[in-house]
Amino acid sequence: MIYFDNAATTRPYPEVLATYTEIASKIWGNPSSLHRLGNQAHRFLEASRKQVADLLGKDPQEIVFTSGGTEADNWIIKGVAFEKQNFGRHILISAVEHPAVAESAQWLVGQGFEVEQIPVDKTGQVDLERFAAQIRPDTILVSVMAVNNEIGRIQPIPEMARILEAWPKVSLHVDAVQALGKLDVSLFLPERVDFASFSAHKFHGLRGAGFAYLKKGKRLSPLLTGGGQEGERRSTTENLAGIGAMAKALRLSMEEREFVQERLAAIKSSLLQELAKYEDVELFSDLDGHSDNILTFGIKGVRGEVLLHALEAYDIFVSTTSACSAKAGKPAGTLIAMGIPGNRASSAVRLSFSRENTMAQVEQFLTTFKLIYQQTRKVR
Amino acid sequence: MIYFDNAATTRPYPEVLATYTEIASKIWGNPSSLHRLGNQAHRFLEASRKQVADLLGKDPQEIVFTSGGTEADNWIIKGVAFEKQNFGRHILISAVEHPAVAESAQWLVGQGFEVEQIPVDKTGQVDLERFAAQIRPDTILVSVMAVNNEIGRIQPIPEMARILEAWPKVSLHVDAVQALGKLDVSLFLPERVDFASFSAHKFHGLRGAGFAYLKKGKRLSPLLTGGGQEGERRSTTENLAGIGAMAKALRLSMEEREFVQERLAAIKSSLLQELAKYEDVELFSDLDGHSDNILTFGIKGVRGEVLLHALEAYDIFVSTTSACSAKAGKPAGTLIAMGIPGNRASSAVRLSFSRENTMAQVEQFLTTFKLIYQQTRKVR
Ligand SMILES: Cc1ncc(COP(=O)(O)O)c(C=O)c1O
Ligand SMILES: Cc1ncc(COP(=O)(O)O)c(C=O)c1O
Repeated sequence: MIYFDNAATTRPYPEVLATYTEIASKIWGNPSSLHRLGNQAHRFLEASRKQVADLLGKDPQEIVFTSGGTEADNWIIKGVAFEKQNFGRHILISAVEHPAVAESAQWLVGQGFEVEQIPVDKTGQVDLERFAAQIRPDTILVSVMAVNNEIGRIQPIPEMARILEAWPKVSLHVDAVQALGKLDVSLFLPERVDFASFSAHKFHGLRGAGFAYLKKGKRLSPLLTGGGQEGERRSTTENLAGIGAMAKALRLSMEEREFVQERLAAIKSSLLQELAKYEDVELFSDLDGHSDNILTFGIKGVRGEVLLHALEAYDIFVSTTSACSAKAGKPAGTLIAMGIPGNRASSAVRLSFSRENTMAQVEQFLTTFKLIYQQTRKVR
Repeated sequence: MIYFDNAATTRPYPEVLATYTEIASKIWGNPSSLHRLGNQAHRFLEASRKQVADLLGKDPQEIVFTSGGTEADNWIIKGVAFEKQNFGRHILISAVEHPAVAESAQWLVGQGFEVEQIPVDKTGQVDLERFAAQIRPDTILVSVMAVNNEIGRIQPIPEMARILEAWPKVSLHVDAVQALGKLDVSLFLPERVDFASFSAHKFHGLRGAGFAYLKKGKRLSPLLTGGGQEGERRSTTENLAGIGAMAKALRLSMEEREFVQERLAAIKSSLLQELAKYEDVELFSDLDGHSDNILTFGIKGVRGEVLLHALEAYDIFVSTTSACSAKAGKPAGTLIAMGIPGNRASSAVRLSFSRENTMAQVEQFLTTFKLIYQQTRKVR
């Protein structure tokens, strides 16, 4: 089996699953309980928070655990809006955001907010000049992803942060779900960033855990109110085992990051080189300015779904675009925003790599692809 | 060790944890992925949904998975409000709701909704006459818990449902977090109920999973927007392992319910009988009209925290009130709503039982309690 769908979800590290099991069976007290079992759970929770914070070079107070990337995105987008509605109602998001951001912003339109998209160029990168011109005195929030989930494009967060230095009251949110463990932290969490979202299952942690970064002093109307956990910022009995497992997954993936990314860069570059040789292959990702673990391309005239299922017959698992828009049968929104016509965009398949992929798999993929390419000749 | 704090959280069934580990290591695909690994995960997800639905006698479409009870409560309270804001803005909640409901309603006050409390009598039960009189043409939602988390009082959901038959447009939400696995389903999910909330870790499932019941045809503005999972009702990559484990925990706890509850009733009744013999003990729970697994009482003049720590010294773990208000140092809101003065309310400790507790533990508890009671004589 070749699993090239790591941007959809990753296989958990076996050690991380072992940590989960150990915590769930041994430290199962409620961190809010006043007795010893509660204290023990509480201490473990705070140790996990410190571990995550240290790995990002941030303060533990700035980390709030959530159920995943979607919750962090929804909370931050809606939370900033509700918190700041009396100061302004204008929100800027890039044209290529994940639905967790885009749909949250869209929901706010129904609540009387104005949402404007920052256009991207034909490589999928945010247009910085246009962005600078779109900021207004009533802008309360800018939201941009660090690494695009559909083509791997890296957004110029440090440059956007620089532009926003002239606008200290505008909150900057970074959806870093696809960036953590892949890029250097400085590329997605420069000092100017106020809020960021993360999800454990994208870095070999377990589903059901994620976290939000909230810069010290920045306030956010809560999405989950209740028992007052997480310093009154996010209520619910804490998923301690998932959180402890996530902290471990983050440590492991950051420790091996450079080592793994080097291999993934080699994988991607040899695939790009080989795929470029096919006349009817169109490349939607590049090396430069893109994350090493995502490569999106298509065979002109062949729907992505057809290529996906052809590869699946050989036990090679890829994605059309993002897992969620795949199910909806929509072409990749990112490609459309880049100005690629719908028929070409719907040829896209995304290969996404992780620590588990090897050069031997690349060979095998290329041999299989050659066969499939020839077979699809008749339909093209 | 005697763990009498099962209303705060329960120890997961070992079999349930084994199920979690098995799913997380074997079925780790993203249910939204179009390939085989995705399909397998998707089928498993739907099988878990059917299992939960069958156990409640409901339709699988009516079950939406969440991260826990708090998310389900927040979603339903805010979701009904946003969905129905053009039809009315009046919301009724009982005076003894969990903060996940009460704080969500409070948040809505800031968004222009009117929230009124339904008073309770001195046993903590909702006043049905007052309730009937409080419903208005602009009432959009009634929210009431099935079993009170602080004293175990069972609310008269079937009677409230009957009263609401004259008001077909008013949504009825039941927070059944403390009821599932303890009461017969008909007592908290009669036909008239539109929405209900549940949490896995209260019935020996794992933290980070819960679910909402949404009656067929009832709409709710989503709390988590994004990839469109759960039939566009709750987005985020599904916590499949947590969900599968929850379905199993629910099956196990419903299978053993009658058997376990009989033992817990015996435990509670002998404790009540013995505790009543102490002159300075005040009982806040009763057998009749209360869940068998919760017993709240206090020693007059002794703060609940003092009794809690005294018991802890003997490895007996109890709670002052709810785990979350315990940390905040607040007396049980339920007792205050019952008209019990603050100084008496702050003597309360809650014992809450589960399948793991035995009559032998009751003996041991009573022996220890006798000692502590005598020791506290001087401070009384
Ligand atoms: C960029 C981006 N943001 C947010 C999410 C949502 O994360 P989660 O699945 O943890 O809710 C994803 C992945 O699904 C993503 O790729
Ligand atoms: C009645 C009630 N509702 C809601 C909740 C919240 O559930 P969770 O901890 O799963 O968020 C609890 C327990 O904490 C509860 O007892």
